[in-house]
Amino acid sequence: MADTLISVELSESPHTNENVHNRWHPDIPINVWVEPGDDFKIETYDWTGGQIKNDDDASDVRDVELEQVHYLSGPIGVKGAEPGDLLVVDILDIGAKEEMLWGFNGFFSKQNGGGFLTEHFPEAQKSIWDIDGMFTKSRHVPGVKYAGLIHPGLIGCLPDRKMLDMWNSRETALFNTDPDRTPPLAALPNTQSAHMGAMKGEARDAAAAEAARTVPPREHGGNCDIKDLSRGSKIYFPVYVDGAGLSMGDLHFSQGDGEITFCGAIEMAGWLHLKVSLIKDGMAKYGIKNPIFKPSPITPAYNDYLIFEGISVDEQGEQHYLDVHIAYRQACLNAIEYLKKFGYSGAQAYAILGTAPVQGHISGVVDIPNACATLWLPNDIFEWDMMPNAEGPTKYLDGSIDVPLAPDL
Amino acid sequence: MADTLISVELSESPHTNENVHNRWHPDIPINVWVEPGDDFKIETYDWTGGQIKNDDDASDVRDVELEQVHYLSGPIGVKGAEPGDLLVVDILDIGAKEEMLWGFNGFFSKQNGGGFLTEHFPEAQKSIWDIDGMFTKSRHVPGVKYAGLIHPGLIGCLPDRKMLDMWNSRETALFNTDPDRTPPLAALPNTQSAHMGAMKGEARDAAAAEAARTVPPREHGGNCDIKDLSRGSKIYFPVYVDGAGLSMGDLHFSQGDGEITFCGAIEMAGWLHLKVSLIKDGMAKYGIKNPIFKPSPITPAYNDYLIFEGISVDEQGEQHYLDVHIAYRQACLNAIEYLKKFGYSGAQAYAILGTAPVQGHISGVVDIPNACATLWLPNDIFEWDMMPNAEGPTKYLDGSIDVPLAPDL
Amino acid sequence: MADTLISVELSESPHTNENVHNRWHPDIPINVWVEPGDDFKIETYDWTGGQIKNDDDASDVRDVELEQVHYLSGPIGVKGAEPGDLLVVDILDIGAKEEMLWGFNGFFSKQNGGGFLTEHFPEAQKSIWDIDGMFTKSRHVPGVKYAGLIHPGLIGCLPDRKMLDMWNSRETALFNTDPDRTPPLAALPNTQSAHMGAMKGEARDAAAAEAARTVPPREHGGNCDIKDLSRGSKIYFPVYVDGAGLSMGDLHFSQGDGEITFCGAIEMAGWLHLKVSLIKDGMAKYGIKNPIFKPSPITPAYNDYLIFEGISVDEQGEQHYLDVHIAYRQACLNAIEYLKKFGYSGAQAYAILGTAPVQGHISGVVDIPNACATLWLPNDIFEWDMMPNAEGPTKYLDGSIDVPLAPDL
Amino acid sequence: MADTLISVELSESPHTNENVHNRWHPDIPINVWVEPGDDFKIETYDWTGGQIKNDDDASDVRDVELEQVHYLSGPIGVKGAEPGDLLVVDILDIGAKEEMLWGFNGFFSKQNGGGFLTEHFPEAQKSIWDIDGMFTKSRHVPGVKYAGLIHPGLIGCLPDRKMLDMWNSRETALFNTDPDRTPPLAALPNTQSAHMGAMKGEARDAAAAEAARTVPPREHGGNCDIKDLSRGSKIYFPVYVDGAGLSMGDLHFSQGDGEITFCGAIEMAGWLHLKVSLIKDGMAKYGIKNPIFKPSPITPAYNDYLIFEGISVDEQGEQHYLDVHIAYRQACLNAIEYLKKFGYSGAQAYAILGTAPVQGHISGVVDIPNACATLWLPNDIFEWDMMPNAEGPTKYLDGSIDVPLAPDL
Repeated sequence: MADTLISVELSESPHTNENVHNRWHPDIPINVWVEPGDDFKIETYDWTGGQIKNDDDASDVRDVELEQVHYLSGPIGVKGAEPGDLLVVDILDIGAKEEMLWGFNGFFSKQNGGGFLTEHFPEAQKSIWDIDGMFTKSRHVPGVKYAGLIHPGLIGCLPDRKMLDMWNSRETALFNTDPDRTPPLAALPNTQSAHMGAMKGEARDAAAAEAARTVPPREHGGNCDIKDLSRGSKIYFPVYVDGAGLSMGDLHFSQGDGEITFCGAIEMAGWLHLKVSLIKDGMAKYGIKNPIFKPSPITPAYNDYLIFEGISVDEQGEQHYLDVHIAYRQACLNAIEYLKKFGYSGAQAYAILGTAPVQGHISGVVDIPNACATLWLPNDIFEWDMMPNAEGPTKYLDGSIDVPLAPDL
Repeated sequence: MADTLISVELSESPHTNENVHNRWHPDIPINVWVEPGDDFKIETYDWTGGQIKNDDDASDVRDVELEQVHYLSGPIGVKGAEPGDLLVVDILDIGAKEEMLWGFNGFFSKQNGGGFLTEHFPEAQKSIWDIDGMFTKSRHVPGVKYAGLIHPGLIGCLPDRKMLDMWNSRETALFNTDPDRTPPLAALPNTQSAHMGAMKGEARDAAAAEAARTVPPREHGGNCDIKDLSRGSKIYFPVYVDGAGLSMGDLHFSQGDGEITFCGAIEMAGWLHLKVSLIKDGMAKYGIKNPIFKPSPITPAYNDYLIFEGISVDEQGEQHYLDVHIAYRQACLNAIEYLKKFGYSGAQAYAILGTAPVQGHISGVVDIPNACATLWLPNDIFEWDMMPNAEGPTKYLDGSIDVPLAPDL
Repeated sequence: MADTLISVELSESPHTNENVHNRWHPDIPINVWVEPGDDFKIETYDWTGGQIKNDDDASDVRDVELEQVHYLSGPIGVKGAEPGDLLVVDILDIGAKEEMLWGFNGFFSKQNGGGFLTEHFPEAQKSIWDIDGMFTKSRHVPGVKYAGLIHPGLIGCLPDRKMLDMWNSRETALFNTDPDRTPPLAALPNTQSAHMGAMKGEARDAAAAEAARTVPPREHGGNCDIKDLSRGSKIYFPVYVDGAGLSMGDLHFSQGDGEITFCGAIEMAGWLHLKVSLIKDGMAKYGIKNPIFKPSPITPAYNDYLIFEGISVDEQGEQHYLDVHIAYRQACLNAIEYLKKFGYSGAQAYAILGTAPVQGHISGVVDIPNACATLWLPNDIFEWDMMPNAEGPTKYLDGSIDVPLAPDL
Repeated sequence: MADTLISVELSESPHTNENVHNRWHPDIPINVWVEPGDDFKIETYDWTGGQIKNDDDASDVRDVELEQVHYLSGPIGVKGAEPGDLLVVDILDIGAKEEMLWGFNGFFSKQNGGGFLTEHFPEAQKSIWDIDGMFTKSRHVPGVKYAGLIHPGLIGCLPDRKMLDMWNSRETALFNTDPDRTPPLAALPNTQSAHMGAMKGEARDAAAAEAARTVPPREHGGNCDIKDLSRGSKIYFPVYVDGAGLSMGDLHFSQGDGEITFCGAIEMAGWLHLKVSLIKDGMAKYGIKNPIFKPSPITPAYNDYLIFEGISVDEQGEQHYLDVHIAYRQACLNAIEYLKKFGYSGAQAYAILGTAPVQGHISGVVDIPNACATLWLPNDIFEWDMMPNAEGPTKYLDGSIDVPLAPDL
């Protein structure tokens, strides 16, 4: 039986745990070491470290302190790993913590992070999802039930100094193009609520001041939020520091491509069972800059889809040039309109697109000036028949249930 | 046996065929009418109308006259169709013309249209793909063979006057922001080589001067280049004019998500077997703006993938804000570097990404400032084992074969 | 474009065609030769040679002359093929003849061949299935539509003399255990309506008298009726004679595991596009006695099933010992009872199980004394929801349409 | 969090647990009750109750006391369930007990139960399989690794008196046709090691003397060993007694169709998370005799197969009449011969067929006199390329590792 190398106590603050951190910095010490070929378990907090409760009040989502995210478990050292190697991680399994068999999905207020459709859903809302074995359903979103495609939203190795500097430099440059924007263009280093693992004193303070936030995906992987990096997958990570320094967190029970609701997928605390090995000098051998991976042989077999198209003309009718982001937003908005015809509220429809295993495809990116993106909605997640027919849609819901909203103060 | 309602003679110019057109305009006359419930066949030219030859010389791709594209067969009238209806199209089958059992893929010169990776592949190149029953392979790209995911790159109904005006207005506004750009930001109306179907004389000239080019996807569908709109799928199209006026063309034997090579997929001439029906007032009933569709129950079962990640930091290291287009470009470039380690030339790797049934997913679009896109490369299309291992890649190709290139003049 | 090496004229008797035969014998001459690596097309009659008509009268099924079946196209010689080799056949594509875009399914009278459920359906019945591109549906069986999983029911190489003798010897021994049984235990050599290809005169008569009937599958493959040997598959056949002598026929547009209706699947005339190559001495290298194959990458993606169990206790309650045949019959009968609750007649239900891509699994064969077999019925072939629910089934059909029956005379 | 209603202590004899039984009888008392709509957990012993050890000595398999099997957890009462209802069971999840993260597979000695290929493997052999998260591999069978398709081999409701009498009557009749056969034709009631749950005293002894053994699948489901009845599936069970009385056990981490090794699949102890509901009078409403089920949306996606055919001619060349059991045995033997060419021992090959998610299809059952069965071997379970090619097979194994064998005493 695999040893649990990092445990977390959900009733305690993650800041009390030296094997947890919420910033990226090469000096965060590696306290836990394994050998290539080892398998072991790692527990993680939910990404917010317990700020969100299982209730019907979205004020915790509205008031979330985003400087705290994401609480990661690690770094784990792999003996013999050197810069330039590929760290091969087999995700043997992932599960929820027995004491928290539920997850949350939410939309942030536009004043505090926003999200993909923040212009359409500008205030904080929250839905709670029960984890029933391999399945999930929500008291706030009737008529849907999904099999879990459980994955870590965030996983990767420690950057070296050079990479950290590059991250800070390029993200600061972008931020400075519009420093007052809400939400901001980038999440720059910020010592507020920084947790630097086992670092202490002045060294800790200095590192926190320059450590990269965990928000974006980067060369090392990081917060990719790729739903297909799920349990059963095999991932090849670039190594930048001796020992690799693998950290992870932000577990999702289920998510749609894009994680469009931002807060986020179905967010959960839990554990991962991992096995590690090395490909020496693998980055050069295979020309690797970002992680590559082989998806799991076990994933939900939802392959009956209704597909929505979107093009890069925005909600105001303005034409953009091959902008896939805008095209995908239109496809999502089209799906939401469709779902509303069956009785879902806009917020419920948005929550479904954020939490269900929907696919988002870059269908066309060369036909000037319009990109075409498609959103693939699996029919089998619905209790009801959601296909078009000559009679028109049936209104299955009467509007009596909705996703709780907490107005901005 | 279904009647062939529109035939094309590949040895003759498409301009001699009154049931072919290469512009969108509400006044293009509907010559061919069917009843709801009918099934019938339609033949189409390849998108260039025969400009590209089955040889080893890419000068035809370099010199292609893009004002001619795309040659569409139609418009087909459906009796009883009215604005606001949904036209339901079952694609019962698609095939190649017996006299042209091959297709082409190419990269345009940056001076004449370019493509997704035009900065990396700035000159014209061409590969020829043989159609062997359900499969294709190329003498220019050894070691790969795909089952066809045959689909019309372009299909949709005639716009009405209001929609046409909106298209022209918004695309002109974009074009005017950088009118000298090469390639241009948009393909505006252009009478050169316009083919207006059965229109003649002054009416034809006036319509051609304002008719929309067929290049981009738009609200009606059009040039979506969605690989999953394949034979066996069922599509629900918005109707804008009496009779609907369905036209189609730009058949592809196989294509990857994004059609990144632009010229394009594996381009072919062929035929479609269609069945049509109506959902009266379906646009309002279902809240439809763009087409929606149910994909085919018969598609290639390539589900063993190697997946590449890309983030929205460009080749020069500049940080962009949640730009999925750039993120997907990085994922594609990462895959190309990987394939080169096995002996493929960059052009061969690019051609594979453009022609094989690769998936492009919008994996993360909220983690500021980086979007994350993933490119899914199916392992089963390769004759060889392409997975990473501890020994490093095997160089299967010696570079003696490449994709023909025609230098700019 | 591949050459058609064997053509058939459906309006003429197959006995006029020297490249057709309906018996297996090593002396049937090979008239058509190809090289390893060649691809080519072969046309075939339907298995009965045109005895069944597209009408609503089952008397042709009742009166069918089974001594005629199966009309095969071939034998085709592959240069260099020798006994002990494996003949590798890529089925590049299969299609229907343009002049016969329909197929038939039937149950034989118990007095003339019977079938799997002949005790329950003892009289001749027939349904006609239209081929609409990739799909089929029947005017006799409302509410179902399938994508075609087109395959040759019968394909294999000529036996040598030793194998022919073995076949005749063992089948005669079985037949003689109950020579008066109806239907008989085996179809022994029979000169009535024998067609020996290009053989003539006395040699023909002598060969016909000892030639094996084409009815059963045997070591060479032959009449396997494996629905998964479909277009796109790659098959490795044992070779027994110089040149291999590949023959084929009995094309099916769609069939369920077991071909339980016997007459049979959706039977059709058509063509195959094949490519051949050799593995020299492959039988010994790989220890091959019967053909092996890799199924197609393109098959209908019906993977939402309702599964029925059956055990080896027969309809009279008698216990049999690990008898999978009986267990599968019970699973099929259970499915028929279920379908009848939705309004299907028994004959319609039986026809669905014979023609749709249902799976039949040998689920348990060691738990004495009961074998357990399962029948997998794909939900997506039905127009209606066929899953159980608390309210009970909806009767979608009123019984006004049924499968035509021709009473025994 | 779901309550565990029945716990088992692996270090203690199952006979000490009143919520465990190893016979079927209507009088076994229901101690545990739930409401329709409840979800809950049940723990189970492995089928032998701990007789098999994790070591390299097969004498425990040789000496197993089969009178003990199968130890089932239950019966569970569902309030309101009455004879004629359907009990709907959602298998929300299944897992191994933390203290036993391994399973076993074995072949019984022909003198003690035998198995499907007992003539070919007449002596006891055993392989041990480690459970690594979602995957399994064995130190006795190199080169293979599978994702688990975890399922209960045995699950069903208590029979009523009438059904029990029918079982005993028909099985005794079969047994009596050859009462001295080894292995026997049926496992008749036997008080040796009978465990009747909470029954005590004379009532217990009387019930044990007539209680049905758990070996075969029967009308209620029972020991079906259907690999697809896996976690995530939904099953509809016939109800015969008030409260239904659902029992289960014989968990398998992975199994091939047929469970041909008999001992059995990868046998394990573990737990199930279930949810129950009722369809009142569902047996009559839907015409149900045996259970029906909808398989899981989450199953291993192994869909690249190499398929072996077998026909109903036995190893001695004798012809049998449409005997699927013999045909499947030939397909299995053909696969074993093939695997031996790559270096596997016969026993290793047999163990793979018994434990991997291979499919066994009833491909043809009407083509007299030969049934045709197919064995589908998934390529992706192998570390190596196992497809045929012109060069012939590579011998990956040197024979130094094999499946331990314990000779008959």
